[in-house]
Order: sequence, then structure tokens, then C-alpha cells
Amino acid sequence: MKDDVPNLKDFDRRLREEAHEDLADVIADEEPKKKTQIIAIYGKGGIGKSFTLANLSHMMAEQGKRVLLIGCDPKSDTTSLLFGGKACPTIIETSTRKKLAGEEVKIGDVCFKRGGVFAMELGGPEVGRGCGGRGIIHGFELLEKLGFHDWDFDYVLLDFLGDVVCGGFGLPIARDMAQKVILVGSNDLQSLYVANNVCSAVEYFRRLGGNVGVAGLVVNKDDGSGEAHAFAEAAGIPVLASIPADDDLRKKSANYQIVGTGASPWGALFAGLGEAVAGAPPVRPTPLSQDELLDLFDGSDTGAGVVLEPATDADMRGKHAAARPSLEVIYDEA
Amino acid sequence: MKDDVPNLKDFDRRLREEAHEDLADVIADEEPKKKTQIIAIYGKGGIGKSFTLANLSHMMAEQGKRVLLIGCDPKSDTTSLLFGGKACPTIIETSTRKKLAGEEVKIGDVCFKRGGVFAMELGGPEVGRGCGGRGIIHGFELLEKLGFHDWDFDYVLLDFLGDVVCGGFGLPIARDMAQKVILVGSNDLQSLYVANNVCSAVEYFRRLGGNVGVAGLVVNKDDGSGEAHAFAEAAGIPVLASIPADDDLRKKSANYQIVGTGASPWGALFAGLGEAVAGAPPVRPTPLSQDELLDLFDGSDTGAGVVLEPATDADMRGKHAAARPSLEVIYDEA
Repeated sequence: MKDDVPNLKDFDRRLREEAHEDLADVIADEEPKKKTQIIAIYGKGGIGKSFTLANLSHMMAEQGKRVLLIGCDPKSDTTSLLFGGKACPTIIETSTRKKLAGEEVKIGDVCFKRGGVFAMELGGPEVGRGCGGRGIIHGFELLEKLGFHDWDFDYVLLDFLGDVVCGGFGLPIARDMAQKVILVGSNDLQSLYVANNVCSAVEYFRRLGGNVGVAGLVVNKDDGSGEAHAFAEAAGIPVLASIPADDDLRKKSANYQIVGTGASPWGALFAGLGEAVAGAPPVRPTPLSQDELLDLFDGSDTGAGVVLEPATDADMRGKHAAARPSLEVIYDEA
Repeated sequence: MKDDVPNLKDFDRRLREEAHEDLADVIADEEPKKKTQIIAIYGKGGIGKSFTLANLSHMMAEQGKRVLLIGCDPKSDTTSLLFGGKACPTIIETSTRKKLAGEEVKIGDVCFKRGGVFAMELGGPEVGRGCGGRGIIHGFELLEKLGFHDWDFDYVLLDFLGDVVCGGFGLPIARDMAQKVILVGSNDLQSLYVANNVCSAVEYFRRLGGNVGVAGLVVNKDDGSGEAHAFAEAAGIPVLASIPADDDLRKKSANYQIVGTGASPWGALFAGLGEAVAGAPPVRPTPLSQDELLDLFDGSDTGAGVVLEPATDADMRGKHAAARPSLEVIYDEA
């Protein structure tokens, strides 16, 4: 197989070398100039992180806070709702483009504002090639070059995809890049599976001496069935807000309408969330076992009555497994 | 920051070393004993890959094909619908557990069957630590130890999360581990963004001498608005099936009911998909630019009229940016 695609050896080498670089070199030791709360938000793709963060950050800005929202999902869709569906140029892509043109990246190339919120997208790894973790580290290096440590924000919100909690996407937890983690989940097994995975990562790095804690869970599309609340209680973390599964909310969100404002009937919900996010201390969660997680749900939803039928070697080998009848005379055709 | 969490240095070293290992070493050069079609399916999380693959594989088995479904999404939810909501033990976790107990993994520990379909889950990287790519490579090593090359399947379907097309999740494309890629998308920008990213990865590795091609797009939750079909046409790939956004389908899927069977009114749809999947040749796609992708949608959905307001350095520095009035006498408080 290797000989069919000889040029890929170079790809392998480059990917290995890139991953081999010491991540510690690129993390600044410098203390921030003021107490900025850096909060990493994790949730399953499609659970409504963009919706939650756009409205939360808008409301926090309305409350007089200085808020910077940084999208770290490789799909670069965190800021989409805030900017009326418009995709904003990502830091990694802009930097690559400017470098080729021999130009410097300026803050106005990558950071945009609406309603008092400042927002930008980190961008993803090179498609099919880069390492997610290196992409995130590279993005943060660029942020530092742009002057991150001189900026004056009360809150920096980092939006991370939670589906793949590999070393790369777990870096903010592993490297104490944030003080708090906030989870977004709903009353379904997969989103709580992701939230629980993030709790496991936090707990793992706490045991190794890390300082990141979980400040709580935002329950989105809450239909009142209670699994997400039960999860939060079992994991020892507070529920910061319950955003109902509501048709009015869904429609407004689809139309890029910001509801995280005093002018909207939904404003109070996001005002409460803003206060909860600001005030909730980072705690050490107690992640659930897979069985404990399943027990939050009705057994009929998690196949409690299903008995898996194991495959056998003969099953897998199919016709290769058919033994010749031993008493028959075999004339070898070979 | 480094000194606060000294034990993490060891984590860094381990992660670097793991990523540094030569991926080429663990890919078998052995030719498969028979012509098995290995098909990698990519799609955005939540787009319905599990639904599509459970019903497709069930129908293919009903058509007399030998089908092996392997979930490679770190959430391990590919086989969930097939097994009535039951999570099946993953290859990576089972292997780790058995190793600790000094036992060998047997095929019946990780591979299960229903309605003629054989199915297993690879499992994810170590939470917050492992590398997605290494996890996938490790899983395939274990598959080979279990006898993958002696198995007799017409189709091996690999289910990959498309949200993060980093080097790890792009490996089947980079390393010619599959002959065909099939995309699952819908009429929304984010799922087509992911599908287009996968096309870019395929095209990139084709330019480097790779052989993987895209066999087509499955349009799921099709409401007839046409964006996914327009995307397929622009990318030069066929639509293999349109699965309608239908309440009956949604309810049956939520109840773990398999509709990919001749006994269901939806059977013909999946029978057609099965034939299309089997017959469609892998083609070299023509990935769209970001602007071309946006042009598939109504401008009001993609912020066509929105003008982003760039931030300035003074914006970012906030009160740090306020210069002292130069003519005023300053008594330093320090």
C-alpha cells in the first residue's frame, strides 16, 4: 500500500514533526495584566453552543461587561449567529494569507464587533492534514502576537467542540489555559456523554495537579424530561440555566435574531445565565461511569432489554471458514 | 504556568512520542484475500449517519451481501440504532481491559450481529489525552490482530465524524485505507461545509498520488430546498439517495425501528441506496470555494447583506488604551 502513494511519506514526516514539537514552548508564562475570566465552553456539535454563546455574550455586554468570544470549533460557526449568518475570516487562514502576501495581520482583519461583543474565529487544522491540537496552539500564538495580554476584557469565552476530546481539543484543560469549563448539553444520551467525557478530562488533569474546574451545565432545548438536570446533580455541578425547547426561540435563532437582550422577552433568561456564568466557581466534577450515565435514561431508550448477539470467528470468515468434510476424498485442484 | 502543573510535562512527552511514531509501520501491506469494498462515510455530527448506516447495512444484508459496519466516531454511537439503543463495547476499551486482565480479545467480545449485519465500535482516544489519529490506527491494528484480512465481507462501512478533518480523522483518505468515500449531508450550510471539507481532503491526497475517490452524497432530512443537490452537482459527485425529512421516519428512528427492510414502506428507498452505494465509482471531486458554497444558499441565510465591523487596537485595549492627557501634571501614585 505504501508504494502506491509514495508522496505521502513526506506528509507523514511533516505531520509527525509538527506533532513532535514541544507544545510547552508556545504557551506564554506571562501573567495576565488583569483578572480576566477565561471560560472554555464544551458541547456536542449541534447542541446549540453558538446560539447560547451569541446570546450570552450579547447580554453580558449589555450588562456592561467587556466580552471577547473566540470560536475554536474547526467548523468556525461560533460567531455566525452573532454576525447575522456571515462567516468571519478566521485567524489561522488570515494569517496564512497575509504571510504569503508579506503583510502583518491587524486586529481589524480578524476581530469584529456587534452590540458591544468582540468576536473572532480561530479556524481549523489544515483539512485532512493538520493536528487539531497544533491548530489551536497556533491560533493562540497568533492571538498573543496580536496583543492578547494587553487586551482589557472581563470575560473571554472559548467555544470548543466536545465530540472529540483528544489531546488537542483537551489542551485548554490540560494546560490551564482557562479557569473554568462550562458544559452545554440537553436531555439526550449523546450530548450528556460528551459533557461527561469533558468532566472526565477535567478530573484527570486535576489529579495531575491541574487547576481547571467545571462551573456548570447549560441545559439547552430543555423539554423538561430531566436527564440533563439529573446528570448535573450526579456529576456534582450546578445547572447554570435551562433554555427551553421553544418554537419561538428556534425560529428567532434560525432568523439570526439575538434574544440575549433586555428588549426581548427571553432577555431575563440570558441575564440570569450571565450572572451564573460570572459567579459560579470552578468545581472538581465527579464524572459518571457509562452505566451510571445510562441509568439516567429510561431503559427502553438505551437498549436495557437488548442482548447483543456476539459474532464468532466462523461468522467473520464466512466461506473461508468452511472446512472440507474430513471423510471425503479431495482431489487437489491446484 | 508550566511550573504550576509539573506532572503534565510527562503527559506532553507521552503525547509527543505517541504522535511521533511512524504511522506507516502499522498499516499492513498485505493484499486483501478477496475484493472487499471498504467505504468510509463522513458527515457532520448529528446529520444522521447512524440512522443512514444502520438502515443501509440492514438492507444490504437483506439483499444477500455480507456487511461489516465499523463505527469510528469517538462517541461510539454508530451501531446504537442497529442494536436498539444498546451501546456495544468498543475495540479499544475492550482491548485495554483484557490486556490488564492478561486475556486475549476474542471476536465475540467486540463484534455483534443483527439481521445479518456485523457491527463493532472502534472507540475514541483517551479522553483529553490521546490523539484521534493514533486511536484510529490503534483500532485498526487490533482489527488486524482479530483477523481482518481473513474475513469474508462484501462491504466494510467505516463511519467517521466529519467535523474535525484533522490528519487523524483524514487517515483513511490519506492512507488509501478505503476505496470510496460517501458523504452524508443535508440542506444546511454547516453539513455541506463539512462535506466540502472532506472533498478538499480527497482532492488534496489525489494530487499527491492517492487513490481514494468520492462515490456520492446521501441527502438526509431532505426538505426539498435543493442546496444539497446543488452542492453535489457543483462538486461533481452524484446524489446516491434523498431521504426525506419525514415525521414517520423520525419517530421510527427515535424508537430504534429499522426501516431498511423489505417489510417497511421505506425499504425501497434503502434498497436503491444500497445499489447506488455498491455501484457508484469513486470520482475525483471538485471542492467548492467558501464563496461558491455560500452562493448555494439564499443570501439572507448567510449574512450576504451584513457588513462586519472591524475592531481596533484601542477597542481591544479598552481602558489600557486611554493615553494620559499630555499637558496635565501627573502625580505618580506608585
